[in-house]
Amino acid sequence: MSKYVALNNDTALSYVQELGQFFPANAELSCYEFGDGNLNLVFRIQDTENRSVILKQALPYARCVGESWPLTLDRARIEASVLKKHGDVCPEHTAQVLHHNSELAVTILEDLGDMAILRGELNQGNTFKYLGTHVATYLARTSFFYSDFYLSAAEKKALVQEFTNPELCSITEDLFFDDPYRVNERNNYPQALEDQVSLLRDNQALLINIAQLKSKFFSSPQTLLHGDVHTGSVFVSEKDTKFIDPEFGFFGPIGFDLGSFIGNLLLNYCAQNGRVTEAPKRRDLHSYLLNTISICLQTFEQQWLTLARTHTNDLSFQAPGYAEQFLQAVLQDTMGYCGTELIRRTIGLAHVTDIDEIEDDVKRLAVQKQTLLLGEQLILNAKSCHSTDDFYQLIISFVH
Amino acid sequence: MSKYVALNNDTALSYVQELGQFFPANAELSCYEFGDGNLNLVFRIQDTENRSVILKQALPYARCVGESWPLTLDRARIEASVLKKHGDVCPEHTAQVLHHNSELAVTILEDLGDMAILRGELNQGNTFKYLGTHVATYLARTSFFYSDFYLSAAEKKALVQEFTNPELCSITEDLFFDDPYRVNERNNYPQALEDQVSLLRDNQALLINIAQLKSKFFSSPQTLLHGDVHTGSVFVSEKDTKFIDPEFGFFGPIGFDLGSFIGNLLLNYCAQNGRVTEAPKRRDLHSYLLNTISICLQTFEQQWLTLARTHTNDLSFQAPGYAEQFLQAVLQDTMGYCGTELIRRTIGLAHVTDIDEIEDDVKRLAVQKQTLLLGEQLILNAKSCHSTDDFYQLIISFVH
Repeated sequence: MSKYVALNNDTALSYVQELGQFFPANAELSCYEFGDGNLNLVFRIQDTENRSVILKQALPYARCVGESWPLTLDRARIEASVLKKHGDVCPEHTAQVLHHNSELAVTILEDLGDMAILRGELNQGNTFKYLGTHVATYLARTSFFYSDFYLSAAEKKALVQEFTNPELCSITEDLFFDDPYRVNERNNYPQALEDQVSLLRDNQALLINIAQLKSKFFSSPQTLLHGDVHTGSVFVSEKDTKFIDPEFGFFGPIGFDLGSFIGNLLLNYCAQNGRVTEAPKRRDLHSYLLNTISICLQTFEQQWLTLARTHTNDLSFQAPGYAEQFLQAVLQDTMGYCGTELIRRTIGLAHVTDIDEIEDDVKRLAVQKQTLLLGEQLILNAKSCHSTDDFYQLIISFVH
Repeated sequence: MSKYVALNNDTALSYVQELGQFFPANAELSCYEFGDGNLNLVFRIQDTENRSVILKQALPYARCVGESWPLTLDRARIEASVLKKHGDVCPEHTAQVLHHNSELAVTILEDLGDMAILRGELNQGNTFKYLGTHVATYLARTSFFYSDFYLSAAEKKALVQEFTNPELCSITEDLFFDDPYRVNERNNYPQALEDQVSLLRDNQALLINIAQLKSKFFSSPQTLLHGDVHTGSVFVSEKDTKFIDPEFGFFGPIGFDLGSFIGNLLLNYCAQNGRVTEAPKRRDLHSYLLNTISICLQTFEQQWLTLARTHTNDLSFQAPGYAEQFLQAVLQDTMGYCGTELIRRTIGLAHVTDIDEIEDDVKRLAVQKQTLLLGEQLILNAKSCHSTDDFYQLIISFVH
């Protein structure tokens, strides 16, 4: 890493120019930095003809905290490599990597600037017809093709080594499974939630479930996960859906990505109670979000089982009924991880704007109480569900 | 690996002599090769004063098949490293590594020549009072101290990478989970077993369980396993028990080692029906073997839960009741893997002398029918067991 240096607008522009492959030789380029994330610099380099690329550079510390929180630059290699691997099996929903330089921790990506980040769109009440199907397709294809069903054991073991990501996994381990369930200065919630939080921390059945979910996060390398699926990691347009930012990628339990996504839709669902005052509009949004969850679960299941039926290479895994049992356990994990996402986004370090932007304290608190309760109930009831419909009914029973 | 060369008696002796640390400078050394295993050369180097060491060298092919079956020399590094890691937490039951050279795939070990290999002893009807306790202690300590309960996530991930062992795992995957359940030229069983084997291969519930056990073998890196625990990998004396030969070591499901060991005791149990004609002697051996299994299961559970209570570093895993739930799943895996060991040793490539040495065809066939049935039933019923006593009763119900 001796050559590493953080880029600025000028050096980022020069870097792209010198590669010489993205713009005509005589193009007049401009560059600006617009990263709003926590960990990276993000530049847009464009010419006067509306051509553009994105240059993303990892910083050797967490940008949101500062240089006091050092963070491995290896995450840039992981991120670019996950995008390439996911792009190999689901190019239609994966942002395209155009170039990667591990020493500089620089990745050049296609510019998705004509699309928008899903979280902001949902917060504005905008909906996307194909969202559930597209996300399910991305998660079904990426999770299947990097699982033991498809890869040889040797290929899989080599990939598990390549995508070992201890530093970023450690952040997830802390934020999802530890902090919310004990007193920790990183937690962030209003005093008025304290009673509910205390009850949650005293719920022994819940804590056993949390330990089981954490154990699977540690030691269940089922597939190459995105690792940070939330509505801020998804670009959307009317017709397209693209995933970005898999720097938390590693081999983990399939339900983690799907559960995180559904958790984010449920966070938005609850948040709409505090955001939208007109009942019909709120009803429409609620209906859209639940429908999207239903489509997402069903499409994921259908596509996964179809892939298992047609593309399972492992002979033992071809046993009739095995894929269905495997997927049932994945769906139970999904509900559990969905619950942890709801809880940690409500009382942990990293919140969502869906809720935090609600200005009225009383309304925001009501939303937080709902997300916390919903998270807890999903975790406690996950194992009594045996089908996507069971899951959907479970969700419905707690949000209606 | 450019320096690798297979040793002979003379070069093995010189190698040890040049290290200069095991014998006095003027010692008169002799050396002979006595490896009866399938994959390695094993030399004993001794002086005239009864001092000796064992030099083990991996060959770049499987010795039992010949140079046509190449096999990674990296297994020597794995074996020596597992012995060191297991020796760190359970020195009393792990053969001691005195020296290792990865380039030559050479390991020098303490000489356990005053002890005997367990399989031969059991075949001769000899019993060892402390066997169950010692094996349970070895498996409880090694499996706990390399699990997520004790290691930090970063330490564990680094060890999982270090002990990635694709070639030798692949042998287990084939021999335990694939070959016995389909037609394969490597399988080896008498024509008279064909009907029972066919029924087994048509048992859909069994095949789903086999797929689940294989899936955990692939993707459940719970701890650093020995990976090849059978009664030929254990040295015993009246007072001591020592494990050798963990070249199949890798991070896998805890139940695999324990299940393999119990499976080998049950193979011997069934074999005694064909080996010992005097009923009282056979009853004594049967009683000893069942008692040893009972002691092993109970001691393993007690020690593991005590370690979990006193040495769990992970905060989430300290949740009351979690270790008990984790261990129940481990014991269910144990029964399943125990069943796969019984089946693969009966109809797969690698048999056990316990059974194969029975000269009477009718008696041997009766034993094989019993081990096959017992294996199948253990796999099918594992998940209905919730305690070590349930397991013990399940075993009893099929062998009595």
